[in-house]
Amino acid sequence: MEHTWTQAGPVMLRDDERIDDLQRNHYGIIQRKGAFCFGMDAVLLSGFAVVKKGERVLDLGTGTGIIPILLTAKTEGEHFTGLEIQEESADMARRSVRYNHLEDKVEIVTGDIVEAGGLFALASFDVVTSNPPYMNDAHGLKNPGDAKAIARHEVKCTLDDVVREGTRLLKPGGRFYMVHRPRRLIEIIQTMKQHGLEPKRMKMVHPYVDREANMVLIEAVRGGGALLKVEPPVIVFDREGEYSREIRTTYGY
Amino acid sequence: MEHTWTQAGPVMLRDDERIDDLQRNHYGIIQRKGAFCFGMDAVLLSGFAVVKKGERVLDLGTGTGIIPILLTAKTEGEHFTGLEIQEESADMARRSVRYNHLEDKVEIVTGDIVEAGGLFALASFDVVTSNPPYMNDAHGLKNPGDAKAIARHEVKCTLDDVVREGTRLLKPGGRFYMVHRPRRLIEIIQTMKQHGLEPKRMKMVHPYVDREANMVLIEAVRGGGALLKVEPPVIVFDREGEYSREIRTTYGY
Repeated sequence: MEHTWTQAGPVMLRDDERIDDLQRNHYGIIQRKGAFCFGMDAVLLSGFAVVKKGERVLDLGTGTGIIPILLTAKTEGEHFTGLEIQEESADMARRSVRYNHLEDKVEIVTGDIVEAGGLFALASFDVVTSNPPYMNDAHGLKNPGDAKAIARHEVKCTLDDVVREGTRLLKPGGRFYMVHRPRRLIEIIQTMKQHGLEPKRMKMVHPYVDREANMVLIEAVRGGGALLKVEPPVIVFDREGEYSREIRTTYGY
Repeated sequence: MEHTWTQAGPVMLRDDERIDDLQRNHYGIIQRKGAFCFGMDAVLLSGFAVVKKGERVLDLGTGTGIIPILLTAKTEGEHFTGLEIQEESADMARRSVRYNHLEDKVEIVTGDIVEAGGLFALASFDVVTSNPPYMNDAHGLKNPGDAKAIARHEVKCTLDDVVREGTRLLKPGGRFYMVHRPRRLIEIIQTMKQHGLEPKRMKMVHPYVDREANMVLIEAVRGGGALLKVEPPVIVFDREGEYSREIRTTYGY
């Protein structure tokens, strides 16, 4: 299929793309109709992650670059690298970086999480973030090459790959931030422990106060000591079905 | 110190003891002034635990028998055994059982959790419950022989002892229910996995909706499959500082 392109500020935009407002610093992000678009997961992770002044951050499986772009707005981190295996997504991410004039702060690298430890200097990042594929049922997929399938299912990388490579790239004492499904929490904890990451903070996300959690946010420290904090839950909707105050004020919905 | 005893219904009561109302079936429980008294932990665990009609239940470290006594009121379990190492507590528990006319349903055994696998038939219980000592700092205690210290600190048994012996006594597919501190959650999960128990349900207890969790309730299944449910949190107090509706209606506070 042929596409037409138009100029949008400093970047070109394809006819099936749009620029969505991130409600932060007037930043926008390029997304494609019908493709995988960022969700509340990424927004919550970027609010949960702590990035201190001067720190260097790596986002594994960055997609359209939502997490590094939001982190530049929310933190004083020095530099953000996003790694993405799909060239189409990486290209959209690079154009979003240019659109927001963040070329000095954010670099998007096309590459494979499975080999991430060979792409960057080991133990060189202060922080690693990841919103990885949640579903480990890749064998049953009809279109495993589909961009959405790769973002959602463990087609190209497993939980173990993400945790293993992320940990190798973290400095000792460095922090790993992940959002995932609570149903896989035990496996996540086991995998982290196995690779020398100690979970230190955890936050459950419940759609309503009386419903099961559907996301979990985890901070784990490379070589950290063994005590966990379970923070107040995020409750997404209030009893009237409106976004809760926390979601509106902290996350800008 | 000499004590005087008085008759209270079918049992004798020591002068430093009192009978507290359990707000269930008009049951009472004998507790001693200045000694370890049951807390909300035990009440929440007895509400979280699922005991089906005809099932046999073992409570490890039963203290004054609060968990088996509450479970007779809340479930249709067939028989409940409470194991307690401190003879004074076990004696109070036995008198509470008599006071509530539960001799046919509840047996209190004086004995050591560390050797529990030798006290009962292996793989003979459908359900094991435990509200074990939370603190693993027994080496720093001034009075490690004190009854309260034994209930709160790992003086006589460790988390590993409780999980290991409880699992041995559970039938395959049997359910283990524990209440503990979230700060030790990672160690709890590791210990359970190591002994072949799979966490399946988890519920965080937060004093207020915007405070860290201070208790965690866990259901784990002997030989269970690897998917976890994180249930809606228990929020103990509402914004006005009153017990929340759930605490009042489900737990009878």
